[in-house]
Amino acid sequence: MNIGHYTFAEFRRLAEKFHGFAAPGILLGGRMVTAAMAALPEGTLFEALVETRSCLPDAVQLLTPCSVGNGRLHLVNHGKMALSLFDKYSGRGVRCFVDPSRLGPWPEIRAWFMKEKSKEQQDGALLEQEIEKAGNSFITLVGMIVDNSFLGKKSSGPVALCPCCGESYPRGHGDKCLLCQGETPFVMLPR
Amino acid sequence: MNIGHYTFAEFRRLAEKFHGFAAPGILLGGRMVTAAMAALPEGTLFEALVETRSCLPDAVQLLTPCSVGNGRLHLVNHGKMALSLFDKYSGRGVRCFVDPSRLGPWPEIRAWFMKEKSKEQQDGALLEQEIEKAGNSFITLVGMIVDNSFLGKKSSGPVALCPCCGESYPRGHGDKCLLCQGETPFVMLPR
Repeated sequence: MNIGHYTFAEFRRLAEKFHGFAAPGILLGGRMVTAAMAALPEGTLFEALVETRSCLPDAVQLLTPCSVGNGRLHLVNHGKMALSLFDKYSGRGVRCFVDPSRLGPWPEIRAWFMKEKSKEQQDGALLEQEIEKAGNSFITLVGMIVDNSFLGKKSSGPVALCPCCGESYPRGHGDKCLLCQGETPFVMLPR
Repeated sequence: MNIGHYTFAEFRRLAEKFHGFAAPGILLGGRMVTAAMAALPEGTLFEALVETRSCLPDAVQLLTPCSVGNGRLHLVNHGKMALSLFDKYSGRGVRCFVDPSRLGPWPEIRAWFMKEKSKEQQDGALLEQEIEKAGNSFITLVGMIVDNSFLGKKSSGPVALCPCCGESYPRGHGDKCLLCQGETPFVMLPR
């Protein structure tokens, strides 16, 4: 059972290259993205909404045209192994999630997913075998429609030069950029 | 002048494939990432902090081991064409930004960057030629150190099953998942 247009082994290598390693979350994510895409009407121009920042966003970026930088991958950090693909215009789509009630036949996936074992206690090879064998059997799909706030093109509006730092910023942010307004998650240093 | 390990033309094709099109922001971003990587001590295990959600995150994901899903790409949505790469352990690194004071020789880049022309008025081919020729000349680099909050491994803690929806969620979010607490950017529908 393929993951997107890839065999399991091919997707595993892609995941290693992009994500750094073939984490269980990205392999399960590959299954989820494949299932969700198959449930959309063919030819749908879709965007993605992912409910965790861990692993899943990379499965979406590897298998769909949606990326963080092109604005078609939306992140909501709820810590849930769930993602939706929805029609860019109507907002209607499908949500799929790892369904705990379906994990009975896959004890190693369940143990990983529910954090029942420490990393040392996990059997990585068995976990991967289970993911390969499980196909879509651990996934539940439901219909969904996103909030209107996710639809339509958003522009950040006109650009201005910040009078403090001299860099450009969206004028709508105020009379100086957010960095110079104090929202600074770093300190600049001489080099 | 290469972008990462790629020629300009190779990176352009990669950008098209991953981002959907070779947007000016991702091509400029490729220059920025390359300049920032060259400024880090060789062998630094680094993470990235990007100050806009547009384009730049994809340049980072294409050229570095940092991705959204592996937690090494941090996003701060300040609408600024700026990014930092910093040592994962010390938090020290370099920040680079498109410097408006350096755009004099590149009028088409400047017009695009400052939104001085509508999309229809832009000369896309000239813009791309300027980006190819400009090399790093439009970039200013400074030192930086990130907040401690960006350092160290964060765990989302133990997992529980939500008594409302039956899905898994980080127990630390409360007695039910954030979705069932009402933070729902979508409505579920029968399929």
